[in-house]
Amino acid sequence: MPSYRLDLAYDGSGFRGYARQNGQRTIQGELESALETVLGTLPATSVAGRTDAGVHARGQVVSFEVQEDIDGAHLARSLNGILGPEIAISAVTRVDDGFSARFSARSRRYRYLISLAPAGDPLTRNQVWHVGRPLDIGAMQSVAGAALGEHDFSAFCRSVEGRSNVRRVEEAWWDPDGEWLTFWIRANAFCHQMVRSLVGLCYDVGRGFIGVDSITVIIETGDRSRVVTVAPPHGLTLWEVGY
Amino acid sequence: MPSYRLDLAYDGSGFRGYARQNGQRTIQGELESALETVLGTLPATSVAGRTDAGVHARGQVVSFEVQEDIDGAHLARSLNGILGPEIAISAVTRVDDGFSARFSARSRRYRYLISLAPAGDPLTRNQVWHVGRPLDIGAMQSVAGAALGEHDFSAFCRSVEGRSNVRRVEEAWWDPDGEWLTFWIRANAFCHQMVRSLVGLCYDVGRGFIGVDSITVIIETGDRSRVVTVAPPHGLTLWEVGY
Repeated sequence: MPSYRLDLAYDGSGFRGYARQNGQRTIQGELESALETVLGTLPATSVAGRTDAGVHARGQVVSFEVQEDIDGAHLARSLNGILGPEIAISAVTRVDDGFSARFSARSRRYRYLISLAPAGDPLTRNQVWHVGRPLDIGAMQSVAGAALGEHDFSAFCRSVEGRSNVRRVEEAWWDPDGEWLTFWIRANAFCHQMVRSLVGLCYDVGRGFIGVDSITVIIETGDRSRVVTVAPPHGLTLWEVGY
Repeated sequence: MPSYRLDLAYDGSGFRGYARQNGQRTIQGELESALETVLGTLPATSVAGRTDAGVHARGQVVSFEVQEDIDGAHLARSLNGILGPEIAISAVTRVDDGFSARFSARSRRYRYLISLAPAGDPLTRNQVWHVGRPLDIGAMQSVAGAALGEHDFSAFCRSVEGRSNVRRVEEAWWDPDGEWLTFWIRANAFCHQMVRSLVGLCYDVGRGFIGVDSITVIIETGDRSRVVTVAPPHGLTLWEVGY
């Protein structure tokens, strides 16, 4: 059966996350409902990153199979007409048989935005965590650096029984620009709440609440009780997926 | 009486513009109501730019007088506590007696954002006019350049009987960045819908609907019927005010 890749962006503010949940407004729910309307049948879909409630995406990828070849550009236009401005399909393209948005992905890259400015910014408030105070960026950079490489990130994940939390982080750094801090992190995959827990630890270290060397201890012990702050979802955006 | 200057930003999406209107949610209405709550009396306020419904502000300025000296930083915090995330006060500062946010202002600078990308961007959809097609940026730049200097902008303004529409434009240019176009314009003052009408004309010229030399004719004749497109308000932000 022909396989298709769907590239999409969304403002997660008004959704209960990506994954379908009964009675809740979710990205998957809206997207599959639109696909069913246009295609006449509901294809099984696979997604690169199951984002949480309030988390956004710029470069999310979904894949699905259909019975017969379809016109990708036409499908993208039809879906955009149904979905409205909170979800935008940038492309629907034919891909090799067996392509899975989830299992074929080699890496995911996320962005997290923090504002240190005393006053909040109304125009970016749904995409930026406004902490409104100075932070020790050097200390935060050290925490980010210690996350690089392959580790068991159990302390940073809402665990699922029996699943490994070993992940390989390929990029993790803070890009400071005046009163704005941008965190970039790329890994082969992420476990649940891993980015937000890492940002939360960086924040706690940056404000002097936890020592800068704590991350190595936390990674070694896997002690989730030491990760007290989980950064709010609205600062997080799934930026791109590598295949 | 001591005079104060209040610097504020807002997301205009949920408001019927700056100016107070009975029964409508407006920036002035929300701000004055918060001032009255904190100060116990409602001071008369003056504003640098009366933005339309849906228009945003990054560097709006409001002034008011009070009976006795107040703690500006404390007032800013109190107002922010009342106003919520759509309006943010960045500072309240004592200024010279007689200062008026409106009449003391020497210039206003606005930003207008356009996206040429085929797909809309959900995360910026309330601040960007998504035209979704290529435009002739060179032609648009020429229109912007022709607006520079002192002209009677009657063709670009919703006129008020008996008032002059002569304005002095000190900066007007398009900054292209891939699929994003940013329009910057600064003038001593603007008449009603002037920026959005100029952007609308640039758009019509950029898509080849109107000739590039039309702006000089339009300015000379003052013929508003030739300005057919008024760009939507949500792409516009009052960026800063010069004193």
